[in-house]
Amino acid sequence: MAGGAKARRLPRVVRERQMLDAAVRSFARHGYQAASMDEIAELAGVSKPLVYLYLNSKEELFTAVIRREAGALLGAVAAGVGGPEVPPDERLWAGLLAFFTYAAEHPDSWVVLSRQARTQGEPFAGEAARMRDGIVRFVAGLIGEAAAEVEGGGGITSRDVDALAQALVGAAESLAGWANETPGVTAKEAAATLMNFAWAGLGNLMKSERWSPR
Amino acid sequence: MAGGAKARRLPRVVRERQMLDAAVRSFARHGYQAASMDEIAELAGVSKPLVYLYLNSKEELFTAVIRREAGALLGAVAAGVGGPEVPPDERLWAGLLAFFTYAAEHPDSWVVLSRQARTQGEPFAGEAARMRDGIVRFVAGLIGEAAAEVEGGGGITSRDVDALAQALVGAAESLAGWANETPGVTAKEAAATLMNFAWAGLGNLMKSERWSPR
Repeated sequence: MAGGAKARRLPRVVRERQMLDAAVRSFARHGYQAASMDEIAELAGVSKPLVYLYLNSKEELFTAVIRREAGALLGAVAAGVGGPEVPPDERLWAGLLAFFTYAAEHPDSWVVLSRQARTQGEPFAGEAARMRDGIVRFVAGLIGEAAAEVEGGGGITSRDVDALAQALVGAAESLAGWANETPGVTAKEAAATLMNFAWAGLGNLMKSERWSPR
Repeated sequence: MAGGAKARRLPRVVRERQMLDAAVRSFARHGYQAASMDEIAELAGVSKPLVYLYLNSKEELFTAVIRREAGALLGAVAAGVGGPEVPPDERLWAGLLAFFTYAAEHPDSWVVLSRQARTQGEPFAGEAARMRDGIVRFVAGLIGEAAAEVEGGGGITSRDVDALAQALVGAAESLAGWANETPGVTAKEAAATLMNFAWAGLGNLMKSERWSPR
């Protein structure tokens, strides 16, 4: 077959990428259970046996998708944040903007990571939890660095840093879902809302300006 | 049987409560799929046919559990918040404290609501989403009231209010999961962390003190 001969000319890494791209679309639209390997093969423009040859099983394909998409998300945020020469508030702003831009430009990827991966039991939920832990640690590292730059660190303990990272990641996840589902909300608007919410809070914390009950 | 005669002496509402209590424990521990009606009946101290007679099916039992627990959570937070005569920051503090106290004192309920209900497909995910929407609307109402008390409302639009409510609810969910899994973190500590994070941010927003890139 001409199609088959043509298909074989593409390197394996390109074919795999096409299959994973197709799988992200299919899993996001139908969920893990309902997504079919037939549709994924068709979207990727390859035969179903080739998908099994390369990715082995639907389970391994879904795991590969979770890992690749989580890596892409973390990579986008890490690239956005910039180095320690940038002031902490600018780094947070750049990181939030990169995150919401990723979620807006890759809505299928975001649905798979934030919803599908967590809701299909093991081993996917564990995989998704490990990926999220990685993002929380990354954010905790940024908050910790920001606190370290302030004299006295605002009295922020490492447990405070962990808790603040959890709060910030949870806020960003929730807001990204809302932004993607609400017509007209841009990534920049969502990032600005969370920046205002988070930085004024974090910024005050780092100046030891805590809220206390009257 | 004496046991049966004794069992029949309890009013239906009490029996149902025992069954729902048992179901919360069982679903939280094993998940919806793996939880068994046998165990639920045993934990409730009733026969399995009585569980089916009262609650009809495992699906209806799970739906009843989600509704009851979500109602209890929202009720606890609403009771904690107090009326509009209380200043907005005190209301937020009281609401957060009530929320984290509920999650800490009812860890099974929190696991069912935050994890199980969302991960078992329809109709449960839809039920859980509607309950979460109710909580977001409640929080948005509080933020809107707080903004309305400030002259000019800090320039906060109704879309800002919706976004801030999503951010706050997401932060609280994430932090509650972390607090329940991290030894030694009290509800009060988790509430204080989020209060400091959120209020200084919200408080500044309402004074029109927004962060902007340099």
